[in-house]
Formats: sequence, structure tokens, C-alpha cells
Amino acid sequence: MKILLTNDDGIYAPGIAALKRSIQDLGQVTVVAPDIEQSGVGHSITFGHPLRIREVHLNNEFIGYGVNGSPADCVKLAIFEIMRGGPDIVISGLNMGANVGIHILYSGTVAAAVEAAIMGFPSIAVSFDISERYDDVNDASKVARNVIESITRHKLQKGSLLNVNIPSCPSSQMKGVKITRQFAHDFRETFEKRKDPNGKDYYWLIGTNKSIHHEEGTDISAVNEGYISVTPLRYDLTDQYLYKKIEDWDWGSTPYERDNKKS
Amino acid sequence: MKILLTNDDGIYAPGIAALKRSIQDLGQVTVVAPDIEQSGVGHSITFGHPLRIREVHLNNEFIGYGVNGSPADCVKLAIFEIMRGGPDIVISGLNMGANVGIHILYSGTVAAAVEAAIMGFPSIAVSFDISERYDDVNDASKVARNVIESITRHKLQKGSLLNVNIPSCPSSQMKGVKITRQFAHDFRETFEKRKDPNGKDYYWLIGTNKSIHHEEGTDISAVNEGYISVTPLRYDLTDQYLYKKIEDWDWGSTPYERDNKKS
Repeated sequence: MKILLTNDDGIYAPGIAALKRSIQDLGQVTVVAPDIEQSGVGHSITFGHPLRIREVHLNNEFIGYGVNGSPADCVKLAIFEIMRGGPDIVISGLNMGANVGIHILYSGTVAAAVEAAIMGFPSIAVSFDISERYDDVNDASKVARNVIESITRHKLQKGSLLNVNIPSCPSSQMKGVKITRQFAHDFRETFEKRKDPNGKDYYWLIGTNKSIHHEEGTDISAVNEGYISVTPLRYDLTDQYLYKKIEDWDWGSTPYERDNKKS
Repeated sequence: MKILLTNDDGIYAPGIAALKRSIQDLGQVTVVAPDIEQSGVGHSITFGHPLRIREVHLNNEFIGYGVNGSPADCVKLAIFEIMRGGPDIVISGLNMGANVGIHILYSGTVAAAVEAAIMGFPSIAVSFDISERYDDVNDASKVARNVIESITRHKLQKGSLLNVNIPSCPSSQMKGVKITRQFAHDFRETFEKRKDPNGKDYYWLIGTNKSIHHEEGTDISAVNEGYISVTPLRYDLTDQYLYKKIEDWDWGSTPYERDNKKS
């Protein structure tokens, strides 16, 4: 099995190294990842400047290819230029921090997996809800490996994407895998308003993974309860329900004619 | 009607100015937009540095509030700090360039509307398929106004989001409004491989809005045919079909136990 491994924390991040070690026995792993951290870039694609592929060595060992672009750029370049014939599966991670709820929408880790899925490859995004409570990346990577093995055993179809989140506790305390849906409410966030030394206001966002809503069966609640959350994602955002509703609305004829009628 | 207007091209962009002029008669418009261009930032949120709100004047006239953050930051700050009581609707645009197909996933324009929808407000993202063929932003803004008026007449519900794309032709030639779904295939993209003056390779992405697939009823085909495309979007990416399928998979017991069994 040919595995393309990428991330958004950059090629030198401990998460991708740990995950690479743990999945080494599942197939031939090629690492193509951003040169530097790209967290929070969302699904960005680089048109404005050229991309370079750099062979990266660490402690005299070749570890993979670094790209001066986003996680999605890495997936594109890997498939078009580096892995001729393409990978059998694309894995993105291990991200430091859960990618649940609406955070999915601005996660570079998930964006890489989405890019792969759109290009027709099965893909898995893997994130670890690292915290002060628990931060053993190697333990989390072993858990990730077992989940990935389960997935590949069942043959994930082309263009399918699973978003895996590993809870913040030792693997021995994890309660198993839970298939979940994306938590679709806003998280409780506020701005702290402060004054700078010149007496001018500034605002700092205090983000949380907490919400006034609580819903069983969602990614966030599963991770908080100590389950490994697996959420199947699709990249077609069309709202079919609203689609049917607005079809019946009066949209007028061409905009120009309506504009004329008014004047 | 209280309207929050934002964009991702920045507060000085011609698109937001033109759209503001054209929707002025629909309600009280408050502009809160990024200080500088944020195209392609996707749905990024600023945690790493504080945000400032700046009153922006142009030709001695107050035009709105500039924020040193992303479009989604602007929506959050506007709702929490600037527009007490909140807006009745959030409009993001007018973006220079269509936001169709998978481009939706990395559009800052759409991200602002998604952020608003998640926070419980009705929202509209509006983009103009500007091209060498046709680039009259004022004409496109008038079309946008009429579409927005149609939407507000029908009372878009809380948390609903419509993605509007205006085709690249004079309004007099537009064929009307078409309700569409997101085009969910990849666009035809390639890398041009070049050599730099030192003989080293570099790669430049050649992106297009073209695909080997063609599907009637999608946002991209509607815009290409001269229709104004209106796509209802949802921000819950859960794939319900795949959800049901993978529920039946064998996920083992806790990862740790399975790990032990092997060794």
C-alpha cells in the first residue's frame, strides 16, 4: 500500500514523525508536507508564487519532501509530481489539537484530506486533542495506526474522507471508536477588550471547544467522553433542504428588466 | 433592515464600495472588513494576535470599520463589538472572481457568510465572475442588489446561507436566476515545471475553472451559461451516506487492547 502522508504543522513537526513511525508497517510511506507550520490556513491553494520541492533530511536521514505551500498544495504536488501513479491512500496528521465542529472548516489538516478526496483518493485526517491533561504524541499515534488499519481493512472508497479525532487521555483509558457527525453549532467565544499602553482598545479572541449546546453523537462530545471519533465528511456543501425551498421563490425575470421596470 | 457588509478583498476594494452603493436603499449598511486583502485565507480565525477596529475614512467620508484580521474575524467582531443587537442579515462581497465548486471551500468571502450562519444570522455571499470579457463591477453590483432584494423579500431564515455568483456578461444579457448545487468535481489543474536561473526546478500551479466533468444544474455551469447562480449551502459536512455504511464496520474494542493482542 502506497501512503501519502502530509500535515499542516510542517514537515519537522513531532506529530507527523510519530505518525510516520507508527504506520510504517502498513505500507510504503511518502511524506510531503509544508516547510513551515501552516495551521489555520484552511483550504488555501498557492497561485501567487511558484512552489519548490525540497528533499528534507534530519539527523542525516531522508524524511520526506518539503513544500513552500499549504497542505492542499502538498497533496496536489505529491500526486502530480512526486508519486507517479498516485498513492493508494492519503493521510493527514497527526495534528496537535482536535479538528471537530466548525473547526473542520478552517483546518489545514482536513483541507489536505479534502483535496485528496476531490482528486479521487480515499483519505483520512487524524487529529489529537492534545492538552495539559495528556500530551503523549507517540501513544496517540499508535491509536491512530490501529484506526487507520481498521479503515484500510474495510477498503475506503475513492473520494471518501474520514475525519478521525483522538481524545486527550492515555490509550488504555479510551472507550473505543464512535462514528459521529460534525457538531454544527458555534463554540462559545468572546473577545477580551483591553487597552494598550497608549490607551487604545484592542480585542483578543478567547476561543474554546465549548458550546452552549450539547449534542450526543457529535465529534466533539465523543472526544470529550474519551472516544476516538470517526466522522465521514463530504465536500459538497449544497443544502438540499433549502434548495427545494428556494426553488419556489419568485426570482423575477432577468435582473436588468426588473431594474428597468423600477425606474 | 440592519445589514452587515464584509468581504475578503479588503475595505478599500472596489467591489465592496460598489455593492454598498447599490444596497444602500435596502437598509442601514455597516461595513466591517479586513484592512488588507485576505483572498484565499479560507475560514481562518485569528487567535495568535490581538485585533483592532479602525474607523476608516476615504475622501473625508466615513466608509466603515477596518479590522486587522480575516473575513470571519470581521463578522465575529462586528456582531460582538460593533453592531450591538446584531444585524438582520450579513452580506459578504462583492468578490472579484466566482466562488463556485470546490473554490467555495477556500473562499474568504464564503467563510464570512458561513461564520455569520453559524452564529445564527441569515447570510449571503456574492461573487462576480470578473474576466477580461466583462469587468463592470457597478453593473454586477446592481444585479447583486436585485438578487439580495428577492432573498430578503422571502425572509431567509436564521443560519441559512446562500452563495450567489454573477456571470461574466452585461446584466442585459443575463438569463436570470438559477438555483444550483455545488459542483463537486476537481477542476483541471496542472503544474508548469520550470527551471530557475540556477538550473533548479520550480512549479507553478495553473488553475482553471474548467473540469473534465460537466454537470448541468451546478453553480459553475450556470455561471458559464450566463445565469446568476444561487446555491444554498450548509456548514455541516457530515456525509450521512458514508455514516450509515461505516457504522457496520469492525472497529475492534479499545485501541490499547488490540495493540496488546498483537504483541
